[in-house]
Amino acid sequence: MTYTLILLRHGQSEWNEKNLFTGWVDVALTEKGREEATRGGHLLTEAGILPDIVYTSRQKRAIITANLALEAADRSWIDVKRNWRLNERHYGALQGKDKAQTLAEFGEEQFMEWRRSYDTPPPALEDSSEYSQVGDPRYADLGDDVPRTECLKDVLDRFLPYWESDITVDIRAGKTVLIAAHGNSLRALVKHLDGISDKDIAALNIPTGIPLVYELDEDLVPVKAGGTYLDADAAAAAIEAVANQGKH
Amino acid sequence: MTYTLILLRHGQSEWNEKNLFTGWVDVALTEKGREEATRGGHLLTEAGILPDIVYTSRQKRAIITANLALEAADRSWIDVKRNWRLNERHYGALQGKDKAQTLAEFGEEQFMEWRRSYDTPPPALEDSSEYSQVGDPRYADLGDDVPRTECLKDVLDRFLPYWESDITVDIRAGKTVLIAAHGNSLRALVKHLDGISDKDIAALNIPTGIPLVYELDEDLVPVKAGGTYLDADAAAAAIEAVANQGKH
Repeated sequence: MTYTLILLRHGQSEWNEKNLFTGWVDVALTEKGREEATRGGHLLTEAGILPDIVYTSRQKRAIITANLALEAADRSWIDVKRNWRLNERHYGALQGKDKAQTLAEFGEEQFMEWRRSYDTPPPALEDSSEYSQVGDPRYADLGDDVPRTECLKDVLDRFLPYWESDITVDIRAGKTVLIAAHGNSLRALVKHLDGISDKDIAALNIPTGIPLVYELDEDLVPVKAGGTYLDADAAAAAIEAVANQGKH
Repeated sequence: MTYTLILLRHGQSEWNEKNLFTGWVDVALTEKGREEATRGGHLLTEAGILPDIVYTSRQKRAIITANLALEAADRSWIDVKRNWRLNERHYGALQGKDKAQTLAEFGEEQFMEWRRSYDTPPPALEDSSEYSQVGDPRYADLGDDVPRTECLKDVLDRFLPYWESDITVDIRAGKTVLIAAHGNSLRALVKHLDGISDKDIAALNIPTGIPLVYELDEDLVPVKAGGTYLDADAAAAAIEAVANQGKH
C-alpha cells in the first residue's frame, strides 16, 4: 500500500516574466502561466492520477494554477484547503526588486546567498513598504506575526506543522493530495521528504507547471527519491532554465 | 449589527443554452456563462462587498462561477467549502431531455407541475441511465443514497441541515458568506429566509450571474425581504426571461 502526493509549482507570474523578486507579493499569472497550469491538469489526466483534495497557499498564482489544472482534469469538485504556511518564501527587502539589478548591485556572492542560503534571510522588509503584507486581509489571522523576511529554514519551520497537522492526515486517510504552491515552499517539502541536506538543497530547482508525483510508503518515505515528473523531458529542460534565472 | 450573505446563481451552462433539463448532470459553463460570472465578481467589487468564505455545490457550473467571480473580485484566497447539499435539484427522468419537446409531449399542466410543484418530484431516473449519478466519484460519500429524483421540498430538506450545521456558523461568526449554487438550491434557501409559502415559491425565479445580497439580523431574518440584486435592472429583465423559459 502506497500513498500518492502531487506537487505543482505555479506557472509563470507577471513578476517572473519581469524578473522581479516576488515572495509574498500577490501577483497574477501571465497568459503563459495559465497555459502551463492547464497543461499540468492534462498531464494528470493522461497519467490517470486523480487528486481527491487540493491544498494551496493564499497567493493567487498558486490558487489560479490549481483552479485551471483541476478544471482541465475535470476535478474542480474536490475539497480545497488554503493556508499561508504554503506561501512562497518571504523575500524581505528584495520583494519588488529586479533580480538582474540586484545581482549587478550586490555581486554574485551576496546575490546567491540571498537566493540559496538555507538559514540566512535577506534584510527585513519595512512595514511601510508598498510590498509589505502587514495589514493585508489575507493574513488577518497572523496579526503582527506576518513575516518581514524568511530564509528557506524559516519556510520549513512554518510549513512542517501544517504538513503534520493537516496534509499528512489526508494522505494517511488514503486521499491523493495535490499541493499547488511555490518554488521555495515546495523545495522545503522536498527537502523534508527526500532528506536532502541543508547544503545540497541549494542546488535543487522545481520547474513550473509540471506535476511532480511522489509515491510514499507507510512511513511517508518516498518509494523513489525525488519523485517522478509527469513530463520528464520538459522538467529537465525547465530545471536547467530555472538554475540560470537572474543571470541574464 | 447585521450579517451579509451573498447568493450567486451560476452563469449560462451548455445545457441551459441547449434548453435541456440538467439537474445533477455536471455540464460546463458556456463562454457567456463565464462572462456572467466575471461580471458578478465586478459587481461585488463595485459594491464594496468582500466575501470571507465561499460555499459551492459539487457541480462545475457553480464552482467555476465562484472561481471566476472571486478572481474578478481579487478574493481567490478566501476559504472554500463544497457540499452536494448545495447541488441543483435532481430532475429525475427529465435529466438530459429537451424542455420544449417535454412541454410538447406532456402538455403545459404536467410540464409546469414537474418544473414548479413544491412537493411532487418527476419520475425517478433509472440507475442505468447515462445521466445517473450512481457511482459518480463526486458523490462517493453518499453511497447508494444518491438521489434519483427530487422536488423542491426534497432540496430544502437536504439543504437545511447543512445551512444550520455549517453556513450559519460562519455567518454568526461575522463572516461575509458567498454561496455559489443553482436555481433551485437558491430558491430553497430564499424560501426559507423570506418565509415564502409552498404555493408562492412557484413564481420565484433567480437570475444567473447577478449577486443577490441579503442583510440578516441577529436571528438571521432578512432586514429587507427578498434581498437586493447588485444590478436591479438586469435582474428584473433576467427574471422575466427565466419565467418564459421552455416556452420557446
